[in-house]
Formats: sequence, structure tokens, C-alpha cells
Amino acid sequence: MAKGIKIVTIGGGSSYTPELIEGYIKRKDELPIEEIVLVDIEAGQEKLNIVGEMAKRMIKAAGLDWKVTLTLDRFNALKDADFVTTQFRVGLLDARVKDERIPLSHGILGQETNGAGGMLKAMRTIPVIDSIIEDMRQQCPNAWLINFTNPAGMVTEAAINEFGWERTIGLCNVPITHCMDVSEKLNVEQAELNFQFAGINHFHWHRVWDKAGNERTKEVIDLLYKEDEDAPDSALKNIHDAGYNVDQIQDLGLLPCGYHHYYYSEDIMLEHSIEEFKNGETRAQVVKETERSLFELYKNAELDYKPEELTQRGGTYYSDAACEVIASIYNDKRTQMVVSTQNKGAIADLPYNSIIEVSAEITSHGAMPYNWGSFMPAARGMLQLMKGMEETVIRAAVEGNYGAALHAFTINPLVPAGNTAKRVLDELLYAHKEHLPQFAEKIKEIEAKQPEVVEYVDELMKSN
Amino acid sequence: MAKGIKIVTIGGGSSYTPELIEGYIKRKDELPIEEIVLVDIEAGQEKLNIVGEMAKRMIKAAGLDWKVTLTLDRFNALKDADFVTTQFRVGLLDARVKDERIPLSHGILGQETNGAGGMLKAMRTIPVIDSIIEDMRQQCPNAWLINFTNPAGMVTEAAINEFGWERTIGLCNVPITHCMDVSEKLNVEQAELNFQFAGINHFHWHRVWDKAGNERTKEVIDLLYKEDEDAPDSALKNIHDAGYNVDQIQDLGLLPCGYHHYYYSEDIMLEHSIEEFKNGETRAQVVKETERSLFELYKNAELDYKPEELTQRGGTYYSDAACEVIASIYNDKRTQMVVSTQNKGAIADLPYNSIIEVSAEITSHGAMPYNWGSFMPAARGMLQLMKGMEETVIRAAVEGNYGAALHAFTINPLVPAGNTAKRVLDELLYAHKEHLPQFAEKIKEIEAKQPEVVEYVDELMKSN
Amino acid sequence: MAKGIKIVTIGGGSSYTPELIEGYIKRKDELPIEEIVLVDIEAGQEKLNIVGEMAKRMIKAAGLDWKVTLTLDRFNALKDADFVTTQFRVGLLDARVKDERIPLSHGILGQETNGAGGMLKAMRTIPVIDSIIEDMRQQCPNAWLINFTNPAGMVTEAAINEFGWERTIGLCNVPITHCMDVSEKLNVEQAELNFQFAGINHFHWHRVWDKAGNERTKEVIDLLYKEDEDAPDSALKNIHDAGYNVDQIQDLGLLPCGYHHYYYSEDIMLEHSIEEFKNGETRAQVVKETERSLFELYKNAELDYKPEELTQRGGTYYSDAACEVIASIYNDKRTQMVVSTQNKGAIADLPYNSIIEVSAEITSHGAMPYNWGSFMPAARGMLQLMKGMEETVIRAAVEGNYGAALHAFTINPLVPAGNTAKRVLDELLYAHKEHLPQFAEKIKEIEAKQPEVVEYVDELMKSN
Amino acid sequence: MAKGIKIVTIGGGSSYTPELIEGYIKRKDELPIEEIVLVDIEAGQEKLNIVGEMAKRMIKAAGLDWKVTLTLDRFNALKDADFVTTQFRVGLLDARVKDERIPLSHGILGQETNGAGGMLKAMRTIPVIDSIIEDMRQQCPNAWLINFTNPAGMVTEAAINEFGWERTIGLCNVPITHCMDVSEKLNVEQAELNFQFAGINHFHWHRVWDKAGNERTKEVIDLLYKEDEDAPDSALKNIHDAGYNVDQIQDLGLLPCGYHHYYYSEDIMLEHSIEEFKNGETRAQVVKETERSLFELYKNAELDYKPEELTQRGGTYYSDAACEVIASIYNDKRTQMVVSTQNKGAIADLPYNSIIEVSAEITSHGAMPYNWGSFMPAARGMLQLMKGMEETVIRAAVEGNYGAALHAFTINPLVPAGNTAKRVLDELLYAHKEHLPQFAEKIKEIEAKQPEVVEYVDELMKSN
Repeated sequence: MAKGIKIVTIGGGSSYTPELIEGYIKRKDELPIEEIVLVDIEAGQEKLNIVGEMAKRMIKAAGLDWKVTLTLDRFNALKDADFVTTQFRVGLLDARVKDERIPLSHGILGQETNGAGGMLKAMRTIPVIDSIIEDMRQQCPNAWLINFTNPAGMVTEAAINEFGWERTIGLCNVPITHCMDVSEKLNVEQAELNFQFAGINHFHWHRVWDKAGNERTKEVIDLLYKEDEDAPDSALKNIHDAGYNVDQIQDLGLLPCGYHHYYYSEDIMLEHSIEEFKNGETRAQVVKETERSLFELYKNAELDYKPEELTQRGGTYYSDAACEVIASIYNDKRTQMVVSTQNKGAIADLPYNSIIEVSAEITSHGAMPYNWGSFMPAARGMLQLMKGMEETVIRAAVEGNYGAALHAFTINPLVPAGNTAKRVLDELLYAHKEHLPQFAEKIKEIEAKQPEVVEYVDELMKSN
Repeated sequence: MAKGIKIVTIGGGSSYTPELIEGYIKRKDELPIEEIVLVDIEAGQEKLNIVGEMAKRMIKAAGLDWKVTLTLDRFNALKDADFVTTQFRVGLLDARVKDERIPLSHGILGQETNGAGGMLKAMRTIPVIDSIIEDMRQQCPNAWLINFTNPAGMVTEAAINEFGWERTIGLCNVPITHCMDVSEKLNVEQAELNFQFAGINHFHWHRVWDKAGNERTKEVIDLLYKEDEDAPDSALKNIHDAGYNVDQIQDLGLLPCGYHHYYYSEDIMLEHSIEEFKNGETRAQVVKETERSLFELYKNAELDYKPEELTQRGGTYYSDAACEVIASIYNDKRTQMVVSTQNKGAIADLPYNSIIEVSAEITSHGAMPYNWGSFMPAARGMLQLMKGMEETVIRAAVEGNYGAALHAFTINPLVPAGNTAKRVLDELLYAHKEHLPQFAEKIKEIEAKQPEVVEYVDELMKSN
Repeated sequence: MAKGIKIVTIGGGSSYTPELIEGYIKRKDELPIEEIVLVDIEAGQEKLNIVGEMAKRMIKAAGLDWKVTLTLDRFNALKDADFVTTQFRVGLLDARVKDERIPLSHGILGQETNGAGGMLKAMRTIPVIDSIIEDMRQQCPNAWLINFTNPAGMVTEAAINEFGWERTIGLCNVPITHCMDVSEKLNVEQAELNFQFAGINHFHWHRVWDKAGNERTKEVIDLLYKEDEDAPDSALKNIHDAGYNVDQIQDLGLLPCGYHHYYYSEDIMLEHSIEEFKNGETRAQVVKETERSLFELYKNAELDYKPEELTQRGGTYYSDAACEVIASIYNDKRTQMVVSTQNKGAIADLPYNSIIEVSAEITSHGAMPYNWGSFMPAARGMLQLMKGMEETVIRAAVEGNYGAALHAFTINPLVPAGNTAKRVLDELLYAHKEHLPQFAEKIKEIEAKQPEVVEYVDELMKSN
Repeated sequence: MAKGIKIVTIGGGSSYTPELIEGYIKRKDELPIEEIVLVDIEAGQEKLNIVGEMAKRMIKAAGLDWKVTLTLDRFNALKDADFVTTQFRVGLLDARVKDERIPLSHGILGQETNGAGGMLKAMRTIPVIDSIIEDMRQQCPNAWLINFTNPAGMVTEAAINEFGWERTIGLCNVPITHCMDVSEKLNVEQAELNFQFAGINHFHWHRVWDKAGNERTKEVIDLLYKEDEDAPDSALKNIHDAGYNVDQIQDLGLLPCGYHHYYYSEDIMLEHSIEEFKNGETRAQVVKETERSLFELYKNAELDYKPEELTQRGGTYYSDAACEVIASIYNDKRTQMVVSTQNKGAIADLPYNSIIEVSAEITSHGAMPYNWGSFMPAARGMLQLMKGMEETVIRAAVEGNYGAALHAFTINPLVPAGNTAKRVLDELLYAHKEHLPQFAEKIKEIEAKQPEVVEYVDELMKSN
């Protein structure tokens, strides 16, 4: 990498881009950037322009001469890239609205990462990742792919295991927020604590030790879930604070991630989500509004720094994490981070090739995960089920296999199995038909034979 | 075994006993029985007498001179036994009423084997199995333990892995009924088909081939679940016929067992069970009535054969299977049967020591399972979760560990996680307090601090 | 299989063919054979004619009208075959002479199955199996491949895992002879004993139980290796009787196979082999002489039954085993046999896809192995090494990879690692150059740069 | 650890102690040491005094006030220790002389770590480790045990898995010397390279990457073993430089450790060792002489620093590594080191509980290994065999099980199996009888029934 670094961001028109730019600027001394290319699709042109101009202002304000390119031509954009980051959303936020509202209208969690919505999001996203990798193979065969498109675990697994791009690292901000939480609760500087995370994306656990070598996990469990059960247990903006049964978590002996609320406090989460749905306040709807106002801010030709409001948006720290991964690869910094990477036995309970989310050192030759070992049976079983579900979703996505899709819905613990599951799947397939070419035939069949599905979805979406 | 065989049946006063006796009589030429001992507890004395006298009449009518002993003294009964069969129910059918009605009153499946009820049944039964094995160690160290007390998988796992009785074989009638179903559907004699079963008790799958070597599994799936979706898909008397989504089962490529309805057709099963609950027709209530009338029949001093009415009782064929296991061990018959035995890698997806339910040959030195291999991810994940749940229940049962019990309730796919799960657990613990000595302290705490639990249960059980 | 059965034997001119024919005749009531095709190569034309005519006489004498075809045209011979058996030897017995004499001339065991010779035999044979399977794919896509060409384990592994022919079963006569030995030693009819075998070809162990369920393994160990240490311990004609250290075998708790002498009594075996080598009595040389005299017998136009002399040839019972596999598949007899088939976890210590040799039932849909579990560490480690060696040989054979070949020689426990191992490999490659097209380039290099190798081999082979 | 650190060294009279002291002094700013206790046995009293006084001089010269205690009372020495390091040698160097000379006199490698000698050393050492841990359980239940007594892998495995001391870390200097070699060969600063090691003690491999993320392993293989095949390939003082077959190592794609010469270049190593034996220059004999002259130096009351001569002694860097482990635990430095610790899946090919030698970070709560994954079959098989051998040796050592000991000798790849192996084992048992209480009965039997063994050993040792 004698020349300066070229970084290409797919989905460059995202509202997150300013955080990404801020992250690069923060690391300007270790990242000799030559060019940042923001790529988007035609439907995102306007946002790309707004956020792209903002990026230019930020870089200029930092006194840097980095080239910023805005383009809709992904193939050419990728030429000689060193790093490709992906933060696109197939179907934009409207798709998320469908992912959440359709299941909830039947009393089922949408949950855009591991629930019904997340499974559909994977089915829309995986074919696009396939085509990006096809382009990369020709244009930048040595580039690293830093994925933070959700569901980040399944997308990363498809990229590596299905499409063969081994230089892929998946990223999520959830572990970062948990480290902050724990540090705050223990009233100990984060740097004075050792964390170890393992699991899969949005379904992982962590342990914590202090500098004296004492494990503090059980103490944190009590601090978070026992002493003041009303207190917020998580800095995550997008997960309702349902609390946990502290006896169960103490038996577990591990700190759950925020998304475990969906699995360990299912009834409360469902009730809350249905409430939100009834009030027209599902996460997608809230985020749409946030996005709208963020872009209003970005339009301001005076604004040349990341506005505070962006931090309010869930998913913050993601972009900074991406910048750190890039800096750590480039400089062999060996930063300890939690990333999605290949298992190879680090978690003894999951298949060798599975993508897991795990504490690792980021070196110039990729992520070197710390070994974790086995989980206790109760955590092991849940994790293994989730991985089985992920693999089934990926197979459905790659093959356009309806039976597999239905199978994934049947076993997903956030979706009660049976007739309603099938109905929700059919509705989601129809609702997303534009973005599911691999299911075209099945969707036609639904349109032809299940008019009630068509009618129901059309009606529901009208009300949006 | 130069002397005649001595068989001891714990729970000898069960309404199933006549089937057991019939089974021995059918095999009189291969089983040189010397003595059958029927053991029961004081609360079962009356039934023991009724069914014991009936057993004597049956044996006499068969022209046999086998000694039949009725006793409440388990320890002495076990002296020099060759085979011990267990068919007891801790707390009798009243306990099952609680197992089913309490969860259902909260809109949660009771399901006396793998659901909330089944977990409690395991917690009541495992300590008793422990004490039986303690007795056996002293009285009959070489005896085989043939367990068909439910949940048969967990009880067998505790017997072998926790209490070290390796000569244990667990039994279930479900596979037998499936073989019958498949044979009928294909219109091929059962002897002309090859079956292979694998999974765990009440959570297994099977494949079928014909004599020409063609696998017929997918054809049977269509015959059972597609062509006439209204037709009964199972001869099991105690599982509501909910049907399956045939696309999912075809993707699976395996025939599910009847209990998979609870997992693959959860919404329908729940609706149906709640209906039954409202009508006072839960399974336990129905069985209680059946039992009552069976014992009326048994009282008839003329009756010296198994009455047809017993077949109507779910769980039929169990006892015959137990007799066949005994005959196959005694004579090294190498009968191919589906039994609960130690995994040792036969199912690659489960821990080495786990008890699995699997096709095996029954030899004079025990069950020799056929190797199965791995399941596809969607089945693998579910199976692994169920095993994790089972292990957690066993740990709770052995240690009297409330956190573990709550953890088991949290991860059990038939119990929605969260506050209601905890409430149901607390109610069940209180309701079964007589039979849960290992949880005595926790139950006292519930009585002291959760008056709403006490009140609710007392009220609900009054209405029974 | 409405029509009569068509069986094609590759290497039909082998001296073993009469045993095969006898095996079919013995099973004439269960095998409705239409045609037997004996295929050989041009160099084997004469033997093919002799043994082919003999086969015809045997069938005629049995009063059967089976068609016997002799041909050099393998491709057309395979048309619509139901079963293909392979018993060819690439390079004929002359190749075996080289396999044994070259290593022995350096003081290293040749051992034509797992030693230096066996590795070279695999490298010569695997490409031929590849081309046979290519033909089968076109001519008889549903046929079963019954392989008894050595090294049977590696050849079967290549057929299934490298060339994708799942309907392959590998066969060996060693387990059969061990069952006979044990039965004789215990003075118990073989039918009254239960055996379980597991391991890999020529490297497996077995246990034995009687009808009363008592394991007799340790007793047999003492009978075979302790009480009369001079007595022959094996009916195998081709393994020198070296005896074992009975303390080690008792610690093992399993009965070793005859080939374990090479591993457990290495020094004695080596000494004995070198003795044979010096006397010009290596196994290949002995067999060549036996073969010669067998063919003299076969020429006799009066001979229409398998001559007693054939039994003297090591490898007897092989062909009968092949006939039984065919009969068991055809009739779904579920005969219990020891075969080479895919592991899928039956031996927990070996990779999932590995080919193992294991007790199995032979059904119409193939071999159903009994699960074995794990070995104790001392047996486990040896077995795992042998499997690693096999995989390395297969890779070398398929890729023509010299580094892999050298690596296999380095780790093979019958070949001391280092300079001599390399020298022996180079000599064997040169000696077999006609039959190792995949190594053509490397062999040219040896010829060009290592004149000492060429000279040494030419000289040694002259003396043969 | 509010008070100063107390470190107890078992085998404190070792010639290595000055390096250990130097290591502490180098780290004086991070290690607030209060007391160093050097423990030895009566036979080592004189050496303990010499080296202990030297230690005091070194500490004084460094201007430190650390207390140095010399004692033969191990139990009391351990009171409240924070760290216990073990560097004792049961039977002193005389035992090593026997370990090497007896096998070599039969033409078999002695090799004091993994060969015949190493197995005996394990059998002598493991019972002593057991008793040390017994003491620690009472005197310092929270102390860390840093073991560098060889065979370090087996001793560490016994400490953790047999005797339950989880806070054990095993250490070896071999990886350190390899990092130096690679750095020198590539002419790149060691800090500019990333290494990853995995395997077991004295049987591991490593890979190397540069800061740009390029793997350099294959290049180093060529540099070390190809370009100048006469050049020394290792800084290890105690391994004869036999070279490797570069084609095999390139196929491996990993850098072997120095001890692999015994396995990959067996014939050359054996020849060389026999040469040494004949010249009375076995390693033990050389070391004895070195030790003698080191102690002469240490006696010099002026000497207050580690003399250069100590570096000539093989095994250097060991002690410095031990100091770094202690400093890293104490300060949570997270130094990356290669240590013996529990596998837990880090190497997918070995049992979960096995002790492996692996790159890890040393934290305040112990070693956190980086995950490695699987080895290629050729390396996997060898490694699995070695682990099986280790487990068998440990079992023999713990149980005093002769059959297991013989089994270990039979499968050890450095010992040809058979009669000679048994003879060598018997001779070694007899020769070490003082230090093998667990084999007392067997040794008596040897003395009684095998006079030739007694005579041979007595004669051979006389000549020493």
C-alpha cells in the first residue's frame, strides 16, 4: 500500500456517513487516505449529494486534502479499492417499515435483525452482497470488505462461506455499548477492565475481569438487573428495556447482550412492540423521522462536523468501529475488538465454518479471535438454534428456496411456528417482491392463489 | 441367569400393567419367568391390589406358574432382580392435572413431557430414580433398568449420567405408532420397510426405505401432509392432529414425530389446548376418567385378558416394547428397536454422553445404536436446543437449583420467556411442593413472599 | 432390478475369480444373475481367458445358464451393470515385487497395504478408480461399486470423497478370519458370539461378547497372546506371527487385527521381513509362485470347481464376502458385515467424511454402520495418525503432489522419517513410472538429477 | 495483592536460578517483590546454598531489598505464596543420564522430553507435582503455578486435569528461540513480525506474518531449509541440526519446531545420537559437565550477575519467560507469549481438556489463547498421536500402570514398538526405582524374574 488508501463505501448516502468521516479524521495520522468514494443507487441520489457535500466540508474543515467522490457507478468506484465498507439498506427504510409492521399486525415480533423482519432483510441483502463481491473480484481482489449492513452475522457468513470473500470482517456496535455500560456500572475505567465476548451477531454474551484478575461478571449482573430493577440496563437506543429475571442470568453466569431481551423477556418485549405498533411508533417509523431531520441538518452548508443529533440515532459507534478496524488492519495495531469472523473452533459448540461474533485482535492479516470454548448447555442450545436458523435463512436467500424460508420461520424462536408464521412469510415475500428476485416464481404464485395475502398487505401498507 | 427370570415393576399398580403381563405371556416360550414383582407406594395400594389380582388371573389363564408378588416394600422387592421396569408417576395423575392446568391457565402449553409440565415432572421423578438406583446398587447390581416413566429421555439421562446406572434403556411407544402409520400410508407391510429413527425422546425424526433400496420418506410426507390435509396424520391418541406445513417438512426431508406438532404447529396446538382447558378436557383430565373406568373393568374377577379399552389409552405399545427389550436382552435376539441410550457420537450434533432416542439392535449386552450422522441445520438447531433444555432441567432437578429451573423455563421453546414463565414456574413449584424436597427452601420463600402465587394455585386447583 | 442381475468384475483375470464364481453359485437362489462380465487389460488377456473359461465350466457344472462375458473393453462392459466389483492390481504382481523389495533393500518395511509399498499402490490405483467411476457415471449410474482392490480403505475413500461415487462399499477379509480365530479359541460357535469391529482398513480392533451378554475380549486376549505364546495367533496367511506384548494388549482392552503386528511388534516384523527379503521370499515373490501354479491348475479343462489350493493364497474369503454384500443389497438381507464405508461420526475420533472399516448391516440402501464411539487415547492417537497418513496419500495420488507424497512417507509409522524415506520414495516413483502419470514431471526430474536412484533401482530389479 | 509479591521456586538450587533472578531484577519496576524463596531437597542442599548466595549478591548489587530465603521445608515455604515456579528435576542429572543412555544402548532415542527418556521423566515427576499441589491447596490456594519442569506439557496436563490446579501455566523456551531465528533469517525486527504458534510442548508449529499483512512462512521455510542446507537452522543448543526435507516442509506450510527433527529427520537424529552415545557425549553428560563448571563460577563470592556461560546451557530464556508470565499476570500486561494451557477447542483436532502449547495473551486472570483451528491431515495425525501418547503416559504415571506404560512405549513414534521397547521400559523402571514408588510392585517383579535386566542396567551405569 505505497499509494494512499482508497476506501469505498457502498450505501454512501446513509445518514451515518458523517460519523464514518469523523472516524477517519480522528485517525488522520495513522490513515494516509487518498480517496473516499461514496457509492449509492439512483433512489438514493439526493441523500448521497447532501451527505457527500457534508463529508467534503468536514474534511476541508479538518485541513485535509482527501479526495471525496460521489457516484452511482459501483463497478468503477471499486477499482483498486483497499477497503470496501457496506452500510446499504436494500429497499431503504420503507422496507424496514414492512419488516416490522407486517409481523406485528399479526402479533408477532418484527425485529429487524434476528426476527421475521431480519430474516427478510437477509433475503434481500445477500444477493446484493453477492453482486458486490462479483465486482470486487474483478476490481479490487485484495480489498478488505468491512460489513456493517444488518443482519451483519448472516451477511458476513454469506460473504465468506457462500461467495468466498475471506477478507470480510463484520461489525456491530452492540458490544461497544455494553463495555460502556459495564464500566459505568462498576465505576471503573473501561481501560481497567478485560472483556471477553462470544456468540453470534445480536446474540452474544460477555464476561468481565478487572486488572487484579478477579471476574466481576456476577457482580455486574446484580448491579444491572437486581439492585434497581427499574433502572435502564442498556445504552442501546433501539431496544426496549425489559429487564431480566436475575436468577436466570445469575445461573447463566454471563452478561447477555441487549438483544437477549427478545429471547429472555419475550412476553414483555412483544407486549411493548405491539403497543408501539398500535401507536404507529415502530422502530422504523421512529428512525424514518430521525433520518428526515438529520438530512435537514446536513443540508446546512455551514455544518462541517458530525451533529450531536446523529448520536441519538441507534447504531452509533458502528462507523467509528469500522474506522478502527481499517486503521488496525492498515497499521497492524492489534486493537482488541469484537467482530464477526470465522469460528474455526473458537466456540466449540458451533460448526467450524460458522461466522461468530467474538473478541479478537485485528492484525494486518485479519482478525485473530481469542478462543472461547464451550457454553453451558442452556446458552449452548439457544446459540446452536440461532445458528441453525441463520444457516437456513442463508440457504433460502441464496437458493430462493421457499421451503427453507418457511423452515427458518418455523424454527426462529421469535416467530411462533405454524399457520401464522406461514402467513407472515407469504405477506413479507409479496410486500418485498421488488427486492426478492430469487423468489419471483413463488411470489407470482402467492399473487395468483392467495388474494387475501395481497389484499391484506396492500391495505396495511396504505395505512402507513 | 441359570434360575428363572425375576422382573420387578416399580409403579406396578399402573393401569398399563395388564399390557405388560400380556406381553410376557406372548413371549412365554422365550422368557422363563420365575417371578414378577409389582411394587407400588401406599397411596397406590388399592390399585395395586386390583391390577395385581388381574395379573394373576391373566397368568393363570395362560396356564403359567409364574409367581406374582404385590408389595409396597421396594427395597426387598429388588433383591436379585434381573430386570427392573419403571412406570410410576410421582404424585399420580393429580400431579399431571397441575402440570397441564397451571400453564394453560396462563395461556402456555403444559405438555407433560417436554413443555412446562414435563419439566416439573422431570424434577419430581429424577430424585425418585436416584433412590431406586441406590436400592438396586445393593440389591441387584447386575439388573437392567427398563425405564418408561416420562419424560423418558431426561429420566434415562439422569439414570445413566448422574446416577451411573449404565444398564438403563429408555422406552417410548411413539416410534412404534409411526412405523404403523407409514406402513399403512404406503400400503406396504411393515416388515417390508426399513426405518431409521434419531433424535431425543418425543423429539425425533425418521426415514424410511423399501426393500428395493429406494428412500420413500418424501413420498410419505406428501401422503401424510399434502394430499388430504384433513386426514389424521398420526395414530397417537394424545396429540391433537394439527397438520404440518408440507413445504417445511419437505425441506426437512425427514418425517417428524407426533410431538413435533408442538414445535412446528405451535399456534394451532396452543389454541387447541386452551380450548380443551376451558372445557375441562385437558389430557390429564381425560386420562383420569379413562383410568377410573379401566380399574372398574379390572375389578371384574372374571376378566383374565387385557381389555380392548386399554388400547384407547395413549401410551399403548409401551409395555409390549418393554417386554420385547427384555426378551431381546435375555435371548440376544438383536431385535431392531428405537430406544433411549447413550449417544457416543451416533448423532454427531449432540454431546457424546447425551441420551438420545435412536434405532438400535437390542443385544444381550445392551443397545447397539446404528450410526445416524448429522442433521441439516434447521433440525440440528432445534434438537440441540432441546438437549440444552433437558440438561438444564436435569441439573435443576438434581441440585434443587431454582436459577437453573428458571433458565430451563426461559429457553424451552414451548414456554414464552419472561415474566409469565417465572410466574408459572413458581406456581408449579408451590403446587407440587410435596414431591419436590430438593426445592423445599425456595418453595418456602414463595409461600412467604408471593402470596399471590399461593392464592392463585389454591383457587385454580379447587376448580379442578 | 426387474431384469436379471448384471455383475461386472474389473480385474476379472485374477486368480481369485473362481472364489467369486463359487460365491455366486452358493447364492444362486437369492441372486437371479443374468450376466457376469470379466474385464481385464491387454497384459492380462491370457489369464483372463484361462480363468474365464474356468468360470464358465463352474457355472455350467452348477447347472446354471448365467452368461459369462470376457472382454478388454471396460467402457462397454459397464453398460447397465447392477454391481461392479474391482479386484485389479495396477502393474500386476511385478509392481508388488517393487513395492516390497525396494524399501526392504533399505531396511524398511514394504508392506503392500499401509507401508511404503501400500502408499505407492494407492498412488497407482486411485487414478484408475477415477477413470472407472468416470465410465460408470455414463454407463451405469445406479450401480454399486464393491471394491476389494488394496489398499481398500484409501481406494474406497478416494472413490467416495474424491470422485463422488457414494454407492461404494469396500471389503476386506481380515475381519472374517478374526471371527474364525476367536470362535476357535473360545470354542464357541461363531453364531453364538457378537462381534463389533471398528477402525480403518488393516488397522482396526474388535470386541466380542457371548450370548449371555458377557464381554469375552480380555479372555480372548489371554488365550491368544498369553497362555501359549508360541501358538499361531492368526489365520491370516500373509502376516508373520510376531505375537504381542500381552500387557499392552490387555491395557488396550481390544483385540488388534493381524496388521497391528506391524505397529505393535515392529522390530520383530522388520527383522522377519528382512530375512525374507534376503532369501528372496518376500510376500510378492511367494504369491507370484502361488499364482503361477494356480493358473496351471485353472488351465485344466476338467476343473470345474474352486481348487483347494486357492484357499492357501492369502486374501481368501474376500470374494465370498463380496458375493454376500451383493446378495444382502439385492435382497435387503441386513447381513451384519465389516465393511469400509463413510464414518459420519460412528467413530467419534475421525473426521466426519472419513472412510472407516466398521461393523454394519448391509441393507438395500447400503451399509448402516453400528455406532462405535471413541477409542482410548492410545488407540485413538494411532488411528488418527493413520487416517492423516491416508488422507495425505490420497491427496498426493490425486494431485500428483510430490511434497504430499514425501509428507506421507515422513509420517507413516512404518517408514522411519528422514533421508532414507525420501530416497525410497524417489526409487519407488522411478520404479513405477509407467503407472504414475500424475508424477511424470517429478519422475523425469529424478531421472535427470538423481542417477544414483535410477542405477540402484535398475540393479535391484535385475536381481529379481 | 496489597502486600509485596512472594515467589517460591521449587528446585531453587538449579543452575538456572541466576537467570530467574536476573529476570526479576529487569522487571523490578513492575514487580514489587517482597520475598523469593528457593526450595530444594536435601540432595540439592549444597547447590542451593551456592546459587542462593549468588542470588542474594545479584539482588544486593541491583540495590534491592528483596528477601531471599533458602529452605528444604517445602510445605512451610509455600505459605501465602503468590507465584510458585517449578524447575526441579527428580533424580537430578543422573536420572537424565539413565533416560538417555539406556535407550541409546539399544539403538533407540532417549530424548528426555518426548522420547523414552521423557516418558520416564514424566512418570517420576508427576507424583511430585501431585504432592506440591497438595501442599499448595493448604498453603496458598490462590497462587499461580508456573511450571517449567519437563516434559512441561505432560506435567502441566497432569497439574490441571489430574490434580485440578487450574491456575497452572506451562512454559518452554523453544518458541522464543524460533522467533529469534525467523527474525534473523528475514532480517526483520522481531517486533515487526506477527507469530502464531500451536501444538503441544516440544511438538508445535508456527506461522509468521509481516506488518503489511503478508504471510512469510513459506519464504522462511526456504530460507531456513533450502538455500543453504548446511547452515544451522536453529538456535536451540540441545538439538542436533539435522535439516529437513524442504519439499515436505513446504507441503506442510508451517514452520516446525526444533524437536520436529526427531520426527521428520528420525534416521539422521538417531545416527547422530548413537554417535554421541558411543563417545560418551549424550546431552546429559554434556550438561553435567556444564553444570559443574557453572557451579564453580557461582561459588565466586565476587560474582553478582548472570555469567555469560549460562546462556550456553540449553534451556536459556526459560527463566526470563517465567518472569514475564509473572509480570504479565501481576500487571495484566497482556503480553503475547507461547504457553502450555488448556485447549478448550483452540486446536480443533485435540480433546477439549488437553493441554496445548499455543500463542496466548497473559492477563491477570490467566492465559487467553488465540484460536488456531485445524491442522492439515499430515500434521493433525502426528499431533493427535503425540497427545494420545501423552495421555497414556500420564495415566501410567498416576496409576502406576505397567500396561499403560508399555502401551505408551509401543505407540511413541520415537520408540520402535515390540520386544526392545518392552526391554527398554523394564530397564528404565528398574534404573529409576527410587523415584517410581507407584511402580514398586512391578519393579520388584522385574528384579525377581528378569535378572538380565538388572545385570544389564547395573553394568551400563557402572560404565557411566
